Formats: sequence, structure tokens, C-alpha cells
Amino acid sequence: MSSYAPEKTDLFSFGLWTVGNPGRDPFGGPTRPVQNPNHLVRKLAECGAWGVNLHDNDLVPFDASASERDSIVAEFKATLEDSGMVVPMATTNLFSHPVFKDGAFTSNDPKVRAFAIRKTMDAIDLGVELGAKTYVFWGGREGTEADACRDPRTAVKRQREAMNFLTSYVKDNSYDLCFALEAKPNEPRSDIYFSTTGHMLHFISTLEHEEMVGVNPEVAHETMAGLSFPHGVAQAMEAGKLFHIDLNSQKIGRYDQDLRFGSEDPKQALLLIRLLEGTCGGERYSGPRHFDAHAYRSEDEEGVWDFARGCMRTYNILKEKAQAFDADPEVRELIASEQDEALEQLTRSYSSENAAALRTQKIDASAIARKGLGYERLDQLMIEHLLGVR
Amino acid sequence: MSSYAPEKTDLFSFGLWTVGNPGRDPFGGPTRPVQNPNHLVRKLAECGAWGVNLHDNDLVPFDASASERDSIVAEFKATLEDSGMVVPMATTNLFSHPVFKDGAFTSNDPKVRAFAIRKTMDAIDLGVELGAKTYVFWGGREGTEADACRDPRTAVKRQREAMNFLTSYVKDNSYDLCFALEAKPNEPRSDIYFSTTGHMLHFISTLEHEEMVGVNPEVAHETMAGLSFPHGVAQAMEAGKLFHIDLNSQKIGRYDQDLRFGSEDPKQALLLIRLLEGTCGGERYSGPRHFDAHAYRSEDEEGVWDFARGCMRTYNILKEKAQAFDADPEVRELIASEQDEALEQLTRSYSSENAAALRTQKIDASAIARKGLGYERLDQLMIEHLLGVR
Amino acid sequence: MSSYAPEKTDLFSFGLWTVGNPGRDPFGGPTRPVQNPNHLVRKLAECGAWGVNLHDNDLVPFDASASERDSIVAEFKATLEDSGMVVPMATTNLFSHPVFKDGAFTSNDPKVRAFAIRKTMDAIDLGVELGAKTYVFWGGREGTEADACRDPRTAVKRQREAMNFLTSYVKDNSYDLCFALEAKPNEPRSDIYFSTTGHMLHFISTLEHEEMVGVNPEVAHETMAGLSFPHGVAQAMEAGKLFHIDLNSQKIGRYDQDLRFGSEDPKQALLLIRLLEGTCGGERYSGPRHFDAHAYRSEDEEGVWDFARGCMRTYNILKEKAQAFDADPEVRELIASEQDEALEQLTRSYSSENAAALRTQKIDASAIARKGLGYERLDQLMIEHLLGVR
Amino acid sequence: MSSYAPEKTDLFSFGLWTVGNPGRDPFGGPTRPVQNPNHLVRKLAECGAWGVNLHDNDLVPFDASASERDSIVAEFKATLEDSGMVVPMATTNLFSHPVFKDGAFTSNDPKVRAFAIRKTMDAIDLGVELGAKTYVFWGGREGTEADACRDPRTAVKRQREAMNFLTSYVKDNSYDLCFALEAKPNEPRSDIYFSTTGHMLHFISTLEHEEMVGVNPEVAHETMAGLSFPHGVAQAMEAGKLFHIDLNSQKIGRYDQDLRFGSEDPKQALLLIRLLEGTCGGERYSGPRHFDAHAYRSEDEEGVWDFARGCMRTYNILKEKAQAFDADPEVRELIASEQDEALEQLTRSYSSENAAALRTQKIDASAIARKGLGYERLDQLMIEHLLGVR
Repeated sequence: MSSYAPEKTDLFSFGLWTVGNPGRDPFGGPTRPVQNPNHLVRKLAECGAWGVNLHDNDLVPFDASASERDSIVAEFKATLEDSGMVVPMATTNLFSHPVFKDGAFTSNDPKVRAFAIRKTMDAIDLGVELGAKTYVFWGGREGTEADACRDPRTAVKRQREAMNFLTSYVKDNSYDLCFALEAKPNEPRSDIYFSTTGHMLHFISTLEHEEMVGVNPEVAHETMAGLSFPHGVAQAMEAGKLFHIDLNSQKIGRYDQDLRFGSEDPKQALLLIRLLEGTCGGERYSGPRHFDAHAYRSEDEEGVWDFARGCMRTYNILKEKAQAFDADPEVRELIASEQDEALEQLTRSYSSENAAALRTQKIDASAIARKGLGYERLDQLMIEHLLGVR
Repeated sequence: MSSYAPEKTDLFSFGLWTVGNPGRDPFGGPTRPVQNPNHLVRKLAECGAWGVNLHDNDLVPFDASASERDSIVAEFKATLEDSGMVVPMATTNLFSHPVFKDGAFTSNDPKVRAFAIRKTMDAIDLGVELGAKTYVFWGGREGTEADACRDPRTAVKRQREAMNFLTSYVKDNSYDLCFALEAKPNEPRSDIYFSTTGHMLHFISTLEHEEMVGVNPEVAHETMAGLSFPHGVAQAMEAGKLFHIDLNSQKIGRYDQDLRFGSEDPKQALLLIRLLEGTCGGERYSGPRHFDAHAYRSEDEEGVWDFARGCMRTYNILKEKAQAFDADPEVRELIASEQDEALEQLTRSYSSENAAALRTQKIDASAIARKGLGYERLDQLMIEHLLGVR
Repeated sequence: MSSYAPEKTDLFSFGLWTVGNPGRDPFGGPTRPVQNPNHLVRKLAECGAWGVNLHDNDLVPFDASASERDSIVAEFKATLEDSGMVVPMATTNLFSHPVFKDGAFTSNDPKVRAFAIRKTMDAIDLGVELGAKTYVFWGGREGTEADACRDPRTAVKRQREAMNFLTSYVKDNSYDLCFALEAKPNEPRSDIYFSTTGHMLHFISTLEHEEMVGVNPEVAHETMAGLSFPHGVAQAMEAGKLFHIDLNSQKIGRYDQDLRFGSEDPKQALLLIRLLEGTCGGERYSGPRHFDAHAYRSEDEEGVWDFARGCMRTYNILKEKAQAFDADPEVRELIASEQDEALEQLTRSYSSENAAALRTQKIDASAIARKGLGYERLDQLMIEHLLGVR
Repeated sequence: MSSYAPEKTDLFSFGLWTVGNPGRDPFGGPTRPVQNPNHLVRKLAECGAWGVNLHDNDLVPFDASASERDSIVAEFKATLEDSGMVVPMATTNLFSHPVFKDGAFTSNDPKVRAFAIRKTMDAIDLGVELGAKTYVFWGGREGTEADACRDPRTAVKRQREAMNFLTSYVKDNSYDLCFALEAKPNEPRSDIYFSTTGHMLHFISTLEHEEMVGVNPEVAHETMAGLSFPHGVAQAMEAGKLFHIDLNSQKIGRYDQDLRFGSEDPKQALLLIRLLEGTCGGERYSGPRHFDAHAYRSEDEEGVWDFARGCMRTYNILKEKAQAFDADPEVRELIASEQDEALEQLTRSYSSENAAALRTQKIDASAIARKGLGYERLDQLMIEHLLGVR
């Protein structure tokens, strides 16, 4: 059995806001002190992480002067250097300040929209300065409770205008940076626009510079709505649009939980890792494995690092299982597709001739219908690999 | 107060399978006799409907011979003519026969995939013969329980191959027909591919003939996952992709209920109708208003027609309310957006100059943050219009 | 049409924490200033409310000295007197301070349990001093994320021990006070013990002084789990256990929303009011109509009072509709039960003779099965009353 | 590593309707032939099951004559004897025949109520004849779509009348039989009365012969509503009311899935088995481990037995893990409760003296609040036991 200890090549990253979360929730105040970002980076390095991500205001306060900003950034860069950590991804906080109480890019107030774009330009500069190659957009307040407040088509247009502006900003500055859009169905708004990774993928296809924009799916966000996370990720991968990923854990139909990766849904996590690691056949995902989660509110600082280590360790345990599952001869036999090359040729691409030939093929629907597919056995094999008894 | 009686110009349609539903469910057999399709058409006409939609096997049995098929179709066309009804939409039953137990276009068995494509070609011919202009695809069995059975990326590719084949078939035959794809998150499969209208919209953007493919969102299907139906429809409309719509009612997080339109979620129905009827400002949807719902299992045939009349009447009641709401001066004032043309010019499209100018604008975030938005009042006005007390 | 203006006899009450909510959420800070409790009481009185409820720490800070407490309470009593407001209900804040991060009465730490009981005794004293007749227990942190941390049966026993201690405390002090227990399925804990009103009702039946303990069901809490709120309330009423009620609005399967009463689910609100007001036949609920909700985060103080007025107004609008619906002759006919007194006598109570006679009755199941029940018509009538078009 | 092969002492049982399920669903017909009950019993015996359960009509058709019934029962008893199988539980089908389309015991029609009671008396006789010790009531159609159709309090009263009648019938016949009531929130009705195990437990406390009535919680039914199944079961066990249990698997917020035990939620299954097997400290459940699940529709008969074997094997795998987890010294240390006997004495039972003494105790809330609880580590240990890497 391998050690499961994280390596730099695993590309494990954490947000400053994840291990730095002080445990505040809607019903109570913090249970842990707020930690200095430099301390968090050093501890993450000790735990074996490769990267650290941040919102602009995780590092630089909303009201910092330019010189405060520069001195904070300088210290942070030194810490990154010392600890051997990288910043693969950065993002903007467009939700904490009350100016964003009704959204940022989709607000009805053009001053708010302009402010949001400007704040993002500055935050992009910061991210690039720190070495980020991916810039995430999570529009958590782009939504409504009183849905009559704007035509939702207007929200789509405003969001597009902002994305087009900002991709052009990046290109104009020759930044080596791509965008990754993150969907969420609700919370903190009753309904958030572009509620799933599917909606985001479509929105991207309508952008000016769509080639530089992909998605950042999050386990918890798709799971809140009860959608299959592996299916959504697969659709993004098939389209070449999985630019980043947020790993955590969540129960369906609940508030945003951001639990330790693998803790609530180990089977789904295994299915996901088969995709990401390419053990089930397709291409492997080569980007960061980012844990967007936080320790339970019951924990002190030591518990935070237990949490961080647990995320990475469970990933590596499940990676080993994914490899073993897909190498299992009984599994391979059960999921081997039927082959019928002659027939497949007819349907692979349309021609009048293929259509005509297809109409003459003898296909015995009743006989096919009678055949059992062995999926109970297949799923039981997955469970037994998961439980480590095979 | 208007009569709310349906007119042909309302474009109200019902599926044969909706008013013909005999009341079977997973725990019990039918409670009503199966009705002859010609009878259903005549009764729908009496109730004031404009159109009737069908799956191939709603009209022509799975095992019918060619001559049986022709005689059935001839009688049905006569009935349509007599009763003044049209067939605006047709679709394929790719889910009832056990050959489709693990999907149709995405099955691991190439014989099943070929059979599904062929069955769809035949059903398209039937639909076109009956005058249909829209062809709906609902891939209800394209999904999994034992998710290891195939790489979900393979499912995407197979679905695309089938769509490309069939759009080409339509073009090759010079049919005047567009496709409308319908998403559903689960049931009868534990997880269905392309789980939401968003996922479908993106998938369409990857098709060979994407210009002839749009979506057919269904209230119940998006609501099962707790997503905002108006937001999903708005995204489709903004992209010019709302080709058809399935109206019904549903509680979140339950089995597929297909309840009478407006019966469980009148406020959401009002928000939807504002979009469809264009009262909130954008373009109006000009296609069929299709009710994909069925009467409670407690009803006899008279109850079925109560149900059908109720769907149409509630639509027209809410349409009147949508107009009144959007004409209400207090509403108009509350949702009037702030204007700041100078600032909007800067963010409308990117240039280095605009970006530089944006950085120098004075925007007082704290002052903006303090302003109340009046959304409680706005939403209360909507409730009072809805309840008929304003 | 009546004015729907609130009257004292409507028994409308609000929590200090509801209209005093400053708009903080998990992703952002307050959007409104914290208001002085005395100001809130005066404004509530102006809006037409009858009562105001509170947690101990809504009025008296956690760390207040005895003399600070007394001076705060004296001023508050004067304000109540001046404004003609009463305090019908009080409760304890056992969730904000980090000492309660893993629960209060069910904590693994006996010091926490003791502290929670003592804090509750003090808060009961405060509530009684202010005139409260009902004492609510919401055990929002009595739950788990890492469910292995304790045997859930131990949690039940500890909760019972606390309830038995505190009911005895009330009796020993001859307080005229009953307890109302409030269930919630999750948030802020992943799973909260006694997750529904049903679980609470059962728990009460195991208490030492069960006669003085009832339930306080909350719309949002049952709705989060997708349960029928009217059904849960009805079961409590039938058992004589509806001691208090928390009115608000919520979408299924989401974070705790606490929206304006009637705003998301007007049909369910109407069904609820039929029960509470007794228009559907049973006994009327005579206790406070408490709104446990808060204004959207987008609102300033004026929006808060819009919200408060909206809650009360919608209640009175729906009350009028409930009366009209249940007086509608067509409704009465549709829901009139079949009568068969001879048969009903046989099943009303068991005897060998009744059982034997029952076995000889001729009952034609097929004939009964064929009869339509008219429920589509009935439900459409409810929708038309709701929408004000009948 | 043990063999995990089922033993008679494991008390594993299956319903005839589970392994006999032919794969029909709302969107398609059967995919497998209906099997003879005697065949099913013999195959279950081969698979290692101990018991088989049944609805009356799983064995005896609805319209069977008395002599047909007797001959069917005689053959079935011979098969049980031959195969060494027992019938631990029986129940009534009060949902398939259309006479029950609006419920059985709660129907508005007294003829339906009488018919349901009589059918149940006959089915109880059948169950007792076959040796059943537990009689299950699942009132799947006792609910509504058009909720105005009856006062839900009337439904409670009618259900109670039926239960009181039937418990008396059992006593009058001196049957050695207890009742186990099974809750479900929805499906096939939009809302079912007594929606959760909690509601059922309370209802039982209002019955005439409550001592002979307990609950039959089902994994899928509580999970549909997103409730913690272990918590509900624990409350029932603590009250001595866990009389039977239905094991299967389910995703939250979906149609009733009845999946193979342990297949979707292995962590929750482990938490459950800790309770049932008493490894976490409390009393062990001594009744049948009943699998109320069925094979995927994709399976032929061989797949059905794969399914049945998988249910039992996964139970035994998780049972071993439960024992190992609760014996793990690090786990034991993490969940050892704090002790403070002096303080616990004060709160264990009320007296004026205890209350007074409690008020003088020094408890440092801030110091307690600072202590981390180690729950991230505890939960990670559970995951590692589950995954078999510890």
C-alpha cells in the first residue's frame, strides 16, 4: 500500500480563504483566530501542498493604500519563494462588501458594474504579479430574491459585456492568463444566474474570446442541486473546457457545506477521480487539484491542518483505487462495449446511402432487450474496490 | 375581467400522452381507460386547444405493419382536419420498449444506437407527414445507475453523432423541421446526461447544424433540481434557442409530477409568462405553449378535461396579471435601472483608453452600499398582483 | 375588499432578531446598521404588530453585568408599556457564542451542558419578567458533521434531561409558561437532532412534564426538507400540541431563507391559514402569529418595514381567501365526504361482532374505483380563489 | 479478512416484491419476466437469505377464490419448509388496485376505508398462518395532490381509528404479532401523511395499544427528504420502537430508488450499522435485516441474484468495519466524553438546591470555546476505515 503522502506533482492547492476560514456562520461568530496569509502559506507547504490561491482581499484589504498593497505583496512573494509554493489561480472578491449586495457585473446600477470591472482589473494585475495562470470568476451575488427586479436576459447581457471587457484587458496586457467561470445554483442569493456548469459552458460559447474561457466546476455547487458532478465535469472535459476544479464535499439539497474532500460522497469522488486521472480511458486533466473547502467550525488550528491533510490523502487513496478498479479484468469485461463495425459505419456520419442501408438492417429488438447487462455486478465491484475488500 | 377562454391564437397544445394518460404509476395500475387518439383530438378541440403533439407510438403501435400505420395515420389526419387541430410538434418514444433499458443513442450496444436512429428517422417522417415543424428529443433513458458502465464523455460523443446524423437526414429530405432538445436531471435513470437546459444549450453549440437545434425546457424537469425555470428559459431566449416549451407544475426535489400548469408555483409561473409574453420588456416567444402534464390519478375522463381547461385558463389569467404588473407605475419606478451614460460608455466595450479612464472615475462604494433597493416592496407588489388585490 | 390592515386581535408578532437583522450572511458583512431594541419595538407598534419576541441576547448582551441587565430591561419594559406592545414569547441564544460550537444540551462536555441549562434558567426568568407565556427552544447546534462523535441516542437522552430539568424549574417557580420546541433538519449543522416537527412531537411524548411542552413549527424548516408544512401543523393541532408557530417563506432544498411570509409559496400559505383560522372545519389556533423572517439584504431600514407590513398584509389577504374558499358552494360539494353510517359504525371501534359483520359487507371495489373524484376541479378552484378571479 | 458470506444468524430477509420486481417503471414496461414466488424463495435460500416477506397480493392474487388462496398458500408453506426459509414479516397491498387511488384508511369514502380494514384483517390472517411476527403498514397512498380534499387532521383521526381497530383484531385473535409503521414523504402522492419516522413515532404514542406498535424506517424514504437516517433510527431505538427496518440505498431529493444496500451512501450505511450492531455502545437491534430494494432495470435474472448477494455482502463488510472503527484506540480517545461528575449530578435531575448550586459554578465559556474537538481527524479516521486503508 502506498503512502498517499502528497507530492508537488499532485498539484494540490488550497485557497487562503479555506485554511484561513475562522469558522463564522450565519448563526454564530468565529471559533478560530484569523491567520496571517504568510503563516498559512508556510503551513500549507509543510502539509505538502503545491499551490495557494486567493481572492484579492484575502491578501490585500479592501481599503488598503497603494503602498500598503505593495508592501503586503512583497512580503507574500518572499514567503512563496521561501516556502516553495506557487499561486496557480487568483480571483476577485465581488461579494463581501455591501456595494455588491445586489450583484456586481449584473447590478442595475452602472456604478456598481463599473466598480466591479475595475476591481477585477486590479485583482487580475495582482494575480498575474503573483504568477497565476488561471483567473476564476464566481458570481455568487449575481442573482435575485425578488426576481422581478430585472429581466434575466439583461443579466446575461451584462455578464457577457463584463467578460468581453476583461478578456480584452488580459489580451491587451499580454497576460498569460485564462478565465475559469464557476457556477452555483443558490446561496447567498435565492437564485443565481448561470446556475450550473452546463449554463456556464453555454454562456462561454457566446463570448468574444471564448477560447480563453473555460469552467471551474465545484463539487458542492453542482451537488447542492443534486446533479451528477462527474457528468458535468465530463461534458466540460469533452469540450476542452475544464480549466480548473474546486474539490470538496456536500450533501444534496443543503446550504453550501464545503466539507473535506471525499468525506460525504466517496463513491462519487471515485467516479470523479477516474475522469480526472484518466483511468477510465479518456484524457487526463492536467490542471490544479484545488480544495475549496474548510474545516468544521468545531476545530482549532490543529484541526484545520488535519482537514487539509485529509483532503489530499483521500484524493491519493481514491486515485489508487481508481487505477485498480479500471485495471480489474472483471470490470474491463463488464464494461467492454459491444462491437459491430459494419453497423457503426452506417451511423458514424450521415449519407443518403447510409440512411437507406440502415433501414434494411435486421435488428432483433426483443432479443437485445432480454440480455442482462451485469450492472449490479459492476457496481458491486466498484463498491468493493472502494471499501478495500478486493 | 376577461373571460380567459382559450383562443387558437394562444397556440395552446397538449401531447396525446398527456390527456391520454390512464393514471398508471410505479405503485399501481391504470385508473382510467386508454382513449383513442382521434377521440382525444376531438375533445382537445372542444376544450379550445390549438395543437396536439405526439410520440410515434402514441399513434402507431411499436409493432404495427406498414399498412396498419398508413391506415391509422390517414384516419388521424382526417380527424385533425375535421376538428381544426394541428400537430405542431412530434417526438420519438425511445424509452418504453425494453430494448432501450440502458439508453438509445448512448447505449453501449451499437445495434441499439442504430435501432434508435432508424426509429427516429421513421418518426420524423411521420411527424413531417402530420405537419410538425418542431421535433423534440427527450433522452430520458440516456443515463446511468452504475455510472462506471461507460465514460460519460463517450455518451456525449454518441449523442452528438446521433444528432448530427439526424439533422443531416432532415436537411437531405428538405424537411421544414427544427429540433428541440429537452433536459432532465433524473428519473427514470438515477442520473441522466445533459441534466439541465444549460447543459443542452452548450451541447447544441457543439453540433454540426447547430442553427437548426434549440431547446425544449420543461418546468418540472428544471424544478426537480430546484433551479429557477425563468432563468434557464431566459438564457435560452437570449441566445435565440427557445424552440419549444413544456409547461406543467412540480414541487422541488420530488419524482416527476407533471402537474396542472400553475398549480404548485403560481409566482414562478407569473415570472415565466412575463418572459414568454414579453411584458417585462424583451422579445416575446412566438412558439407553441405546450402543456406536458396529466390529470391526477384520482380523476375519471371528466376530470381529465377539467385538468386541460385549467392549464389554459390559468395561463391566460396569469398573462393578464403579467401585463398589469409590468404596466403598474409603482413597479416601473422600482425596477427602473440607474442610468450613467458616461460610465456605461467606458465599460460597453474594451479599449486601453476606456480601461484607463475607468481607473480614474470616482465611485463611492460606501454611499452606494447604503442605498436601499426597494425589493421587498417590489416583490410584495408582485404578490398582490398575483393574488388579485391590486 | 377589506383593508387587510393588522389589528391587535390578529396577534401578529415579530422577533427582535427579525426586523433587527442587519443583513449579514456567510459571504458578506452587514448591509444595514444594528438597531436599538427600543426603536424596533416602537416601529413594530407603528406597523400594527401586537407582540415582540426575543432571545436573551437580543436584549441583554452575553457579557452584561447584573446592573446593566436590569437597566436595559427596565428601559425595555417602559418602551413596551408606552408602545402598547407585549412579549408573548422568549427564547435562549444557545448558538452564537463559540462555547456552543458543538451544541448546548447535547454537547459532549458536561460544562457546556450545565452552562446551557443555567443560561436558559436566566433567560426564562427574563422572559417571565417581560410577560412571556411561551418559551421556545430551537436547538440549532444540537447536531453533527462528524456523526461518529457521539451515539445519537445519547443526544436524545441529554436533550430529555435538559427538558425535564427546565420544566421542573418552571414549575418550581410557579411560572405561567409553556415550552414550544422547534425542529430543523440542518444548518448550521450538517444534521440536526429531532429534524422535523414529527420527531419533536414524539420526543415530547417521552418527557416528564409533557403536558406543558408543545411544538413551534417553522415554515422554512419543514420546507427545507420538502415536507408539507400544513400536514405537520395539522398533526400537532390534532394532538393539542401547536403552542406557537413561526411564519415565513422558503424554497425547498435550499439554505435557511426566512423570506417574507407568503412570498414564495402562496398556495401552501393558504392551505396553512385554512388550518390556523379553522375555515376548513377543525378548531382554530388561538396563539400568536409570529413572523420569523427578515428583509432581503438589499434593503435599508425602510425596506425592513415594507417587509414587516407585507408579512401581515399577506396573512390577512390569505385569511379572507381561506374564508371565501371554504364558503364556496362548489368547493363544499366537491369535498363533502361520502356517508355510510352503517358501515362506519362497524369500523369505528373494534368488536368481534363488528369484525365479523364487516367481512360480510358487499363492497364493489371496481365500481368505486371507476368514480372520478373531481380533485382537478377542486384544486383549480383553490388556484382561482388564490388568484382572485372567483 | 472474513468471507462476508451470509449466515442464517444474520437475519437477512428480502420481500417477494424485491427480487421479484420485473423492472417496470413510469416510462417503460417490464424488462424481466415475473417469477413464481416459490422459485424466488428457493433462490433466496440458495443465496443465503434467512427470511422472505410479502404483501398479501405478492402471493395471493387480488381476485383469488378461497380455494385458490388455500392451494397457493399450501404450496408456499411447503416451499418454505423445503428451503429452510421463514416469513418474519407480512404486509397488505393497499395501493395497487385503483380502489385505493385516493388512499385506503384515510379515504373520504367509508366503503374504501372499510374495504381496506377488511383486506388487512385477511392479510393479517395470511401473515400469521405463514409465521410472521411483524406486520408492516406502509400507507403509500394516504396523501394528497389537491390538499384541500380533506382536513389533514381528519386523516390522522381515520388512520388512528384503523390502527386501533386492527390492533384490537390481533389481540382478539391472540396473534403473536406486532405492527411496524413505515413513513414516506411523497411518491406516489405529492404529499403523504406522517411523512417521516418522527411523525410515525408520535402517531404511535396516541394509539390505544401503542405497546404493540413500532416503526419500520426505510433508508430510501428518509433519505428522499434529506434527513439523517441514523438519527431517525436512533430516536426509534432509544424509545424501544425499532420493530423492523427496510435497508436499501437512495440519493437525496429523487424519486424512490430502492437501490442495492450500501451502493450510494456507504458512509451513512456504516453509521447505521454501528447503531444496529451496537458497536458504538448502545443496545443492538435484534430484528430482521430486511432489504427492500430491487435490481436495476438493466438486469436479467442473474443480475437480480447479483443484486441480492451484493446487499448481504456489503452489510457484512460494513459490519466488520463498524467493529474495527469502534475498537480503534484513536477513535475511542477522540470520542471519549469529558467527565465532570460533580457538575453532572447537578443537572441530572432538578431540585431547587441543584438549580441554586448550578448558578454558583464557575464555568469559563471562553476557555471551553477555544478547545478544538478533533472532529476532522475523527471523520477522516472513519473514511479511512471505510476505504480499508487503516
